[in-house]
Amino acid sequence: MKRYQALADDIARSIRQGLLSPGQRLPSVRQASAARKLSPATVFQAYYLLESQGLVEPRARSGYYVSERARAMPPEPDTASQPDGQARAVDVSELVFEVLESAMARDIVPLGSAFMSPTLFPLARLGRAMAHEAVHLDPRSTVDDLTPGNAELRRHIALRYRIGAVPIAANDLVVCNGAIEALNLSIAAVTRPGDAVLVESPCFYAALQTLERRGLHAIEVPTHPREGIELGALDAAIRRHAPAACWLMTNYQNPLGSSLPEAKKRELVELLARHELPLIEDDVYGELHFGAHRPAPAKAFDTRGLVLHCSSFSKTLAPGYRIGWAAPGRYAQRVARLKLTNTLATCVPAQLAIARYLQRGGYDRHLRGLRKTLAAQQAAYLDAVARYFPQGTRVTRPDGGYFLWIELPEGSDALAVQRRAAQQGISIAPGPIFSANRGYAHCLRLNYGHALDARVDAALQVLGALSSAR
Amino acid sequence: MKRYQALADDIARSIRQGLLSPGQRLPSVRQASAARKLSPATVFQAYYLLESQGLVEPRARSGYYVSERARAMPPEPDTASQPDGQARAVDVSELVFEVLESAMARDIVPLGSAFMSPTLFPLARLGRAMAHEAVHLDPRSTVDDLTPGNAELRRHIALRYRIGAVPIAANDLVVCNGAIEALNLSIAAVTRPGDAVLVESPCFYAALQTLERRGLHAIEVPTHPREGIELGALDAAIRRHAPAACWLMTNYQNPLGSSLPEAKKRELVELLARHELPLIEDDVYGELHFGAHRPAPAKAFDTRGLVLHCSSFSKTLAPGYRIGWAAPGRYAQRVARLKLTNTLATCVPAQLAIARYLQRGGYDRHLRGLRKTLAAQQAAYLDAVARYFPQGTRVTRPDGGYFLWIELPEGSDALAVQRRAAQQGISIAPGPIFSANRGYAHCLRLNYGHALDARVDAALQVLGALSSAR
Repeated sequence: MKRYQALADDIARSIRQGLLSPGQRLPSVRQASAARKLSPATVFQAYYLLESQGLVEPRARSGYYVSERARAMPPEPDTASQPDGQARAVDVSELVFEVLESAMARDIVPLGSAFMSPTLFPLARLGRAMAHEAVHLDPRSTVDDLTPGNAELRRHIALRYRIGAVPIAANDLVVCNGAIEALNLSIAAVTRPGDAVLVESPCFYAALQTLERRGLHAIEVPTHPREGIELGALDAAIRRHAPAACWLMTNYQNPLGSSLPEAKKRELVELLARHELPLIEDDVYGELHFGAHRPAPAKAFDTRGLVLHCSSFSKTLAPGYRIGWAAPGRYAQRVARLKLTNTLATCVPAQLAIARYLQRGGYDRHLRGLRKTLAAQQAAYLDAVARYFPQGTRVTRPDGGYFLWIELPEGSDALAVQRRAAQQGISIAPGPIFSANRGYAHCLRLNYGHALDARVDAALQVLGALSSAR
Repeated sequence: MKRYQALADDIARSIRQGLLSPGQRLPSVRQASAARKLSPATVFQAYYLLESQGLVEPRARSGYYVSERARAMPPEPDTASQPDGQARAVDVSELVFEVLESAMARDIVPLGSAFMSPTLFPLARLGRAMAHEAVHLDPRSTVDDLTPGNAELRRHIALRYRIGAVPIAANDLVVCNGAIEALNLSIAAVTRPGDAVLVESPCFYAALQTLERRGLHAIEVPTHPREGIELGALDAAIRRHAPAACWLMTNYQNPLGSSLPEAKKRELVELLARHELPLIEDDVYGELHFGAHRPAPAKAFDTRGLVLHCSSFSKTLAPGYRIGWAAPGRYAQRVARLKLTNTLATCVPAQLAIARYLQRGGYDRHLRGLRKTLAAQQAAYLDAVARYFPQGTRVTRPDGGYFLWIELPEGSDALAVQRRAAQQGISIAPGPIFSANRGYAHCLRLNYGHALDARVDAALQVLGALSSAR
């Protein structure tokens, strides 16, 4: 954990334990900096993070104060999940489709959606880049830029990794039709039907659907809602089940919002390397960090080529363009060949458009604005959850991404909430779609990637009421 | 077979049998029309087809004459293939990749390529359509136009089918990342690993690769180089092997160039319906007909929803855009769900660009020009094959598409020709990549989709010489 995060955590704990009360003033940055032996910038980052979480608020020329609503905030879930540790055939895809299809009406309030609001992206500017490339398209690029993909785009993607000291070169990359194709090809490259794969518990339903479709078994591993998969349990599961691969979201995991601290990522990579086990790393949310720095992917520590790292522009820049990529390490040729037989190639004008956008600059500025917006929306949604959801609710406060994981009081029925909400024009993602055997019956994933306007506020109130009914 | 084709065939046979000699004049259109009881337009079509095949040539104000080179033309292969009829695990993908990867250098002469020249497409006009759509992109379309795809694009695709009396409605269509994804999802929708699938012999290597990747067995069925798969043999194979599906290219089959006559397509659909057997129909070349009318797909006769028809714009309008589709009949929901888990969605700006291009008209004009170009290139390539290839060579004269299938004299080694040609900067597709057990050792597929300039002529001369060496 970074130092500013540790400081923010300490203060948040003090607030939750009542050591700091609403209205009370935090130490000044100078005081805290001296007392903690931290730079003023680090203290500022911590206070800013607390503010984004709705726990403190600045007052002009007077410093930071514990916010009125801070104490009323439902607690975070703070124990790791406890799946049963069995390897089992996955049987959740039908349920996932039922839930997704019930949420496809255009005017539904998209609290269960996997997408944030498309208005948050620089689509006009990106469109101008695409217009330029489309009109000036070199016919040869329709052949040359097929798999593994446009060289200039791969150079730009590699450059961003290089700045973060992640060892991915342009030639290591296979451009894919979104991260989902990259992930599908990666798991196909390292498994055969009947193999077992280690996943987080809960985990992203699309991963489970892929395992189900390919006849793979899932082993759900205990996962902490803040710090991600438990390495001791992971090691034990490897020894017990001899799985073929491990498939994780290392940053702002969907649905928990958990991120492995950097040291834990390094340990994870070393642990898997000792077992010669490939890691499919889904890092589509890594750029959506609320802290000052992009968290490293596990790929940063991969010296053996065992990490098949996957990401995309769909969550950060270009929804609908369907541009993702895999950096599959030692499996690069296998993934490229699978790409050829799966979809042959990725839309060439879309590749060129993003390459041109990246070339002309502005991506980081866009990302800074996007992160601020999402952090502010998280605070607003947390506030609404605090107001509307029943006593005994717990809710995460991830420091990135755009999902909250809500644990309703034990005995709640998230699928019933989801069905009743759908009847009222509100979508929500119920816990059971995130588990190979439909666990997490009392949990919900809430998307805060849409501005909390009056309509959304009313929907959250309805959700809270439905969640209170027993 | 259409009447003009029958007439052209008669005349071509007469030329080959020496009843008509080079330099001899064909009957005038009026004479032939009266003698055959055909309309003058039909006779014109027949003569035009013969001209496109290089067998006759017009002389100003004097009519059509048998061309000088006509008699020298190698004969067509005219017997159906005779595969051994076994169901077997496919083992050809590694060979296919070796061959394709040896052909990936940019300056290679692309006679083995699966693509025609990208200069044959209206990329500038299409690019302007894309520019308009990209700049005016409605953010909501990045969500609304995900699978099954943009409604306007599906409406235009359906309209083209409707004109040809093919019963495909907009709502029956799932937009995919090229025909290859549509085909992959279609076969996945109707099979499980270990199932057997009926294919043509020879058949397109990408179909074989898909079967191999999914652990399906292939049953190669005798196929005539002009009229496609043999229905008697197909029926026998169904009774013997109880396959899960049949996967065919009904028009201008890759690599043979064969097309099922319309009555045979109807019989095929009825035969399969009697066995409740789904047909995966790959029709990507159907629009590239040299005759006056687009040949119907088998889907035209599908009253039971058993035909999963797949096509794309990649071979006719928009290479590199990666827009294809499936019309999966009764399997539509299953294919749409597989699409969601495979790649989630298809590039939205590319969908919108093609919808706009179709809306604004000009596609048919473009296609007419493209067909003429390809027919003329076929004649030129046939001429070169006649000049350069060894005695005993046979070559097809498909009336559409852009592939010739060359049978070298028995005992020839197409893989050796391919390897030596690659060393000289020339690609060619050897017969064994078109067969589950690497048959067709003496055959080559030749792409005539690139203008026959001096460089290509020299390459064909080299290929002919390599093919003559024993």
